[in-house]
Amino acid sequence: MDIPQQMLEEIVHRALREDVGDGDRTTLALIPAEAQTTAHVVTREAAVVAGLPVLAAVYAAVDAAVRVTLHVAEGARVTAGATLATVQGSARSILTGERVALNLTQRMCGIATQTTRYVAAVGNHSTRILDTRKTTPGLRVLEKYAVRMGGGVNHRFGLYDAIMIKDNHLALLAAHGIGLAAAVQRAKASVGPLVCVEVEVETVEDARIAAEAGADLILLDNMPPALLREAVAAVGGRVPLEASGGITLETIPAVAATGVDFISVGALTHSARAVDLSMEFAAQ
Amino acid sequence: MDIPQQMLEEIVHRALREDVGDGDRTTLALIPAEAQTTAHVVTREAAVVAGLPVLAAVYAAVDAAVRVTLHVAEGARVTAGATLATVQGSARSILTGERVALNLTQRMCGIATQTTRYVAAVGNHSTRILDTRKTTPGLRVLEKYAVRMGGGVNHRFGLYDAIMIKDNHLALLAAHGIGLAAAVQRAKASVGPLVCVEVEVETVEDARIAAEAGADLILLDNMPPALLREAVAAVGGRVPLEASGGITLETIPAVAATGVDFISVGALTHSARAVDLSMEFAAQ
Amino acid sequence: MDIPQQMLEEIVHRALREDVGDGDRTTLALIPAEAQTTAHVVTREAAVVAGLPVLAAVYAAVDAAVRVTLHVAEGARVTAGATLATVQGSARSILTGERVALNLTQRMCGIATQTTRYVAAVGNHSTRILDTRKTTPGLRVLEKYAVRMGGGVNHRFGLYDAIMIKDNHLALLAAHGIGLAAAVQRAKASVGPLVCVEVEVETVEDARIAAEAGADLILLDNMPPALLREAVAAVGGRVPLEASGGITLETIPAVAATGVDFISVGALTHSARAVDLSMEFAAQ
Amino acid sequence: MDIPQQMLEEIVHRALREDVGDGDRTTLALIPAEAQTTAHVVTREAAVVAGLPVLAAVYAAVDAAVRVTLHVAEGARVTAGATLATVQGSARSILTGERVALNLTQRMCGIATQTTRYVAAVGNHSTRILDTRKTTPGLRVLEKYAVRMGGGVNHRFGLYDAIMIKDNHLALLAAHGIGLAAAVQRAKASVGPLVCVEVEVETVEDARIAAEAGADLILLDNMPPALLREAVAAVGGRVPLEASGGITLETIPAVAATGVDFISVGALTHSARAVDLSMEFAAQ
Amino acid sequence: MDIPQQMLEEIVHRALREDVGDGDRTTLALIPAEAQTTAHVVTREAAVVAGLPVLAAVYAAVDAAVRVTLHVAEGARVTAGATLATVQGSARSILTGERVALNLTQRMCGIATQTTRYVAAVGNHSTRILDTRKTTPGLRVLEKYAVRMGGGVNHRFGLYDAIMIKDNHLALLAAHGIGLAAAVQRAKASVGPLVCVEVEVETVEDARIAAEAGADLILLDNMPPALLREAVAAVGGRVPLEASGGITLETIPAVAATGVDFISVGALTHSARAVDLSMEFAAQ
Amino acid sequence: MDIPQQMLEEIVHRALREDVGDGDRTTLALIPAEAQTTAHVVTREAAVVAGLPVLAAVYAAVDAAVRVTLHVAEGARVTAGATLATVQGSARSILTGERVALNLTQRMCGIATQTTRYVAAVGNHSTRILDTRKTTPGLRVLEKYAVRMGGGVNHRFGLYDAIMIKDNHLALLAAHGIGLAAAVQRAKASVGPLVCVEVEVETVEDARIAAEAGADLILLDNMPPALLREAVAAVGGRVPLEASGGITLETIPAVAATGVDFISVGALTHSARAVDLSMEFAAQ
Repeated sequence: MDIPQQMLEEIVHRALREDVGDGDRTTLALIPAEAQTTAHVVTREAAVVAGLPVLAAVYAAVDAAVRVTLHVAEGARVTAGATLATVQGSARSILTGERVALNLTQRMCGIATQTTRYVAAVGNHSTRILDTRKTTPGLRVLEKYAVRMGGGVNHRFGLYDAIMIKDNHLALLAAHGIGLAAAVQRAKASVGPLVCVEVEVETVEDARIAAEAGADLILLDNMPPALLREAVAAVGGRVPLEASGGITLETIPAVAATGVDFISVGALTHSARAVDLSMEFAAQ
Repeated sequence: MDIPQQMLEEIVHRALREDVGDGDRTTLALIPAEAQTTAHVVTREAAVVAGLPVLAAVYAAVDAAVRVTLHVAEGARVTAGATLATVQGSARSILTGERVALNLTQRMCGIATQTTRYVAAVGNHSTRILDTRKTTPGLRVLEKYAVRMGGGVNHRFGLYDAIMIKDNHLALLAAHGIGLAAAVQRAKASVGPLVCVEVEVETVEDARIAAEAGADLILLDNMPPALLREAVAAVGGRVPLEASGGITLETIPAVAATGVDFISVGALTHSARAVDLSMEFAAQ
Repeated sequence: MDIPQQMLEEIVHRALREDVGDGDRTTLALIPAEAQTTAHVVTREAAVVAGLPVLAAVYAAVDAAVRVTLHVAEGARVTAGATLATVQGSARSILTGERVALNLTQRMCGIATQTTRYVAAVGNHSTRILDTRKTTPGLRVLEKYAVRMGGGVNHRFGLYDAIMIKDNHLALLAAHGIGLAAAVQRAKASVGPLVCVEVEVETVEDARIAAEAGADLILLDNMPPALLREAVAAVGGRVPLEASGGITLETIPAVAATGVDFISVGALTHSARAVDLSMEFAAQ
Repeated sequence: MDIPQQMLEEIVHRALREDVGDGDRTTLALIPAEAQTTAHVVTREAAVVAGLPVLAAVYAAVDAAVRVTLHVAEGARVTAGATLATVQGSARSILTGERVALNLTQRMCGIATQTTRYVAAVGNHSTRILDTRKTTPGLRVLEKYAVRMGGGVNHRFGLYDAIMIKDNHLALLAAHGIGLAAAVQRAKASVGPLVCVEVEVETVEDARIAAEAGADLILLDNMPPALLREAVAAVGGRVPLEASGGITLETIPAVAATGVDFISVGALTHSARAVDLSMEFAAQ
Repeated sequence: MDIPQQMLEEIVHRALREDVGDGDRTTLALIPAEAQTTAHVVTREAAVVAGLPVLAAVYAAVDAAVRVTLHVAEGARVTAGATLATVQGSARSILTGERVALNLTQRMCGIATQTTRYVAAVGNHSTRILDTRKTTPGLRVLEKYAVRMGGGVNHRFGLYDAIMIKDNHLALLAAHGIGLAAAVQRAKASVGPLVCVEVEVETVEDARIAAEAGADLILLDNMPPALLREAVAAVGGRVPLEASGGITLETIPAVAATGVDFISVGALTHSARAVDLSMEFAAQ
Repeated sequence: MDIPQQMLEEIVHRALREDVGDGDRTTLALIPAEAQTTAHVVTREAAVVAGLPVLAAVYAAVDAAVRVTLHVAEGARVTAGATLATVQGSARSILTGERVALNLTQRMCGIATQTTRYVAAVGNHSTRILDTRKTTPGLRVLEKYAVRMGGGVNHRFGLYDAIMIKDNHLALLAAHGIGLAAAVQRAKASVGPLVCVEVEVETVEDARIAAEAGADLILLDNMPPALLREAVAAVGGRVPLEASGGITLETIPAVAATGVDFISVGALTHSARAVDLSMEFAAQ
């Protein structure tokens, strides 16, 4: 899958250490070491799928002899009752890995499903849905992957891969006598040629200034649709525009209709509801 | 706080590595190294507070010279607009740690706040609200702490600290000719005297059998209130009872009224919405 | 085996890093890279076996091409001279892993063997032998496993999986006006329904109070057999009892005869003598 | 102390993670966060002290505000009842760190005490007592330090800091037509000028050959005193000699009297009994 | 400094573990624990300074009581014989940390010094010198920092913070029927709005195509100055241009004169000679 | 190869995490997941080969399905244009691992090649070339291996595997009234019998004193050939001698001619130029 192997293994290792700790007392007490079984990963509600390769990685870490077969593609839409994967092998291993496997996958499916709702709300407009850095600490790489599976676009991955000048930066710079245009120019000048610079503005005039100063992307913060429309006109296509701030499924159509290029939504990741997945064991 | 120091430092370290990566390009490009500032952590909505010591730990890791002052106690209820903490020191450090500090704290506040709603729904009944293992991989210790701050009670922390015989275990055991009572007895016999054994049942009759077999806790799975009431009568106070399975804020009062001792709710942790916190920088 | 895979790999990895460091200068200097050999793991004294899967895990980490065949079951009693396992493959790899493999296994066999002596001393009484937390830092999971292989029962694994109110806790609580019964009740009330509470007492009267207060297990500290017998009578089977404190192989029969349910022995782990194992290389 | 800071912190961190896990449920449930106390680390038996700085490091990791005062020097002999250290600060922190602190220190004191017995048995001879690599995996650096505190001398620390040609190496080399003298010469030639080469021999004649071949140290394996004496004469002081193999406290005087330079004893570390230390809390 | 605290500590910790291992046998054998000393870090040759905060971090990790005073600013030019820093405290600690501190700093000074030579060679042209990913594995963040201190500009930090379509990518895409323009457009479309896309071309015509396709930066690979000049003209300032491939100090003036915006030089990091620093101890 | 497996995996893992970070955006954006390819690792200049097994380990970590075939032996001399290895498998995996694989290998080849030049300069003399601890932090084990592949001999690996008394130690000891001979004797007495002691001297007289005091190796610091010759005569073969300090390819013949046993050269590792390797993809 699209997650670097080393990173995926670290996440899975950590999750297993957390849940299994010094041993799964239930299976060790009750399940014979030689018992084999088959279990199906089933969704109890309609969903967009993301994270099945992570489920496979969990079982690879628990017990390399467990076989995982994936039945649907990443990004696929499935209905309630669909079987997403089948897990076969040691009953102890399958039971021990169950919760970690489901916890990771149900969260990823939840984010992908949530993302598709926002993407759908855009309708025929060309506006695209962006995520934010409001992700779960330690799981960002999985959550941003899930956003992609839901049709969203990834904003920057961290503080390290792009410059984003926010209101707080601007306020501090203002106290040092540095205005918006100077901030953008200084940022562009201080980094290499492959680092983009985004700047957050709150007025149409500032959007225009930012565009002229050479920003690569402009975040229009908390503007109502009418102002967004003005900003789109003022910038005139010179720089892509991102609308942000309290935008909901309900307000997305109106925001998209203003002509902004991107809408960023923290709720894609910070408040997505997990999809209800379960592991159903075949009759013995 | 109640989180082991080593564990808290690992979570914070990992979260900072993830977000800061090879450096915060924005602050390095724009903010003078010597600039000092003050910022307030403010909630934009009413909430139950949890995680302020984690916020302090984030800044301790970013820059030991940053001073964090906490203004409200863990578990306190606050209204929209309340200032939870003040952070003073290097502007670069405060900006660099902002998102990690907020991501962790807003999630913990969200879980505490969510938990209080379920606790309140119980009303005057003595039933208590339990969490589950449906937590975010890597953050379980923080999330279970947040449940406590919201008035909930922690179920087991992992596969390692109690035995829980679920339907899947029972089905596997049945295939080996081992029934419910035998399973409970075998589990009790195979572990030390400080390991409790819970068993999941789906019928009143099984609840009675489990109680007689010596279970320390019985999970009544997906039973409607009428059946729960029968189970409570059948067990007759010999063993505490936990209702579980699809219980919502709406159905809690009816479930609590049946006389069960505990209600467990996965949604406390797997689908809590983050509280909307922000960091507001003082005028320079 | 019964040790979580992630945990076992970490222990083995750490042990190899410690012993091999930047390289095994002897084998690199002298043994041809292509030389193959066969070695037998032999015990020079009678023993109860524990840890052969750990030996296999050491070689899996050193060189996945080395084949390890185990000849006796975990927990088996063997006589001096018995061959426990055979290791075949690269001579360099087998020599490099030898000491780590033996150091871990001989300690585990030592603990299992030590445990069986205490278990045997109990004779026909139903009393069971418990371990303690007096284990080697970093190896607890292996040592508690070895206790089980020797027929012992594991007490709690750490500070995290049960409550144990010891004399020091009680003294501190007394200074705050909280007595034995209140301490037990407070502990029960403050944790979830699957956390057991043990309390340490020094008098028969306190044992009775602890039982009435709802303790799940009572530790009778340093009581002579006569007092233990009184405590057993006073508690009357309501709560299991654990005798502890300076109990030796010689005094075990008398202690077991008092009717206590458990005897805990720190010496199972903190002072077990390693079994004398060696690796004997087949004639070339 | 003489343990590298980074290594000491890793050992302590790992031991605390193992014992404290997700939290010390007892102190969190019962001991007020603000309670302060004082505890004394007392030995219940005569001992040679080693490891008090490790005890201090444990508390530094648990809670930097806990103050540890050491009352005796490393390597000192103390009588039963002696107070070795005093710990003051948060009652929760002191209780939480107690077992890890004692487990590490009592093992180190045990090894130092054991070592002094072997050193004393040498009497007026100039023979010195060496340890081996039969240490506890993960704790070698602490155990070898304890040997030094008991008056012993450290043999090599691992496979990386010296060459030691043992019987198994020689047997493999013989199969390739390489004899004892050639093995020693090959080893000397293949490494840098600061790597010493020891070789294990079983006959007086081989000792003489090894000395002539340029070995830096010769291990006389399992030789009775009469043969050892012959070997000492045959080598004639050209190379230091180490007697090894089943030497006990009882046989040490006779072995030392043969004139060997060193006696190595695996039992210093692999089977030392822990010293009985306890933490006694001051009256509140 | 500009290196994230967590990352700097990991590098320093790893370097100390590597060099100090299980202990600095020389200082432990010879230097009294209480001896104090003062040492000066001196350069034996003219240099541009980078890495003094790293030197300070090494000593903070070895012994927090050692005081490090820095005498010159990062990026400063110093002459042979200049004192860069003074280290005061435990003689053992200062000696133990010496080589790690120097190894890191002398490499960073070497890179900064090397970079200034290339920057100087550009003369009055506005061309800037870029580094590459040909850095030392594990030290990239330090080496790219040193390039900045020498007046260079950082190219991307890894595979994660920008897209760079190289000849090998293009060859593979060509085999799938995807040409240069399509590759650039596909890359732009598949990532978020803050990810820049660079493409490597070998002809003037391809440079023109890349510019029209929307590349954010174009790498002109191995072109002689005459062709570079043509490419500059063909692109006409629409997209910045980077010259790369075998450019040396001797050829830089001619390359810079062509009007390219950037010249990238792998030799800044992969083959910089360490500056000759030494630690000189004050007379006792 | 001769690098411990655990250590090699750690280095490779760290290097990949550094370069790949949260994902290789270029290959993910452009290269189909199912595309397969073949690439050849080619040297663009004559070189001595070292590190091909490291290259194989990189690909084993990136993607276990990639096949790496090595075409030349470690330590072999190759001419410009030689193909060193072939890599076959997923195009994405091969491209993602390319830079890390080359960065490690080109550095190791550079060190081996550099070493052979110094070895060749010795000519017919029996003097051998030693490396130093001036290696890249984190990569010492690979760099010392490369020195061996180039025909050099490894000096000590760290502060832990031999004693080396340098001028700074001697100056500190002098301040405590301890002279050269006493320092050597004290060092010998304070460590085990397998730890060698080297001492650095600056005069012929001190060389003589050191030899008589029992040093195992004497470093003659910064002596011109005439003095070296005198020192060789004064020591008379009793102890091996190492010349050190500013010795270059040009001065080596004269130094070797003095009869010293070893010449140590920091430049083998701290300033070796990387060999120009590239990965050439087969036509698709």
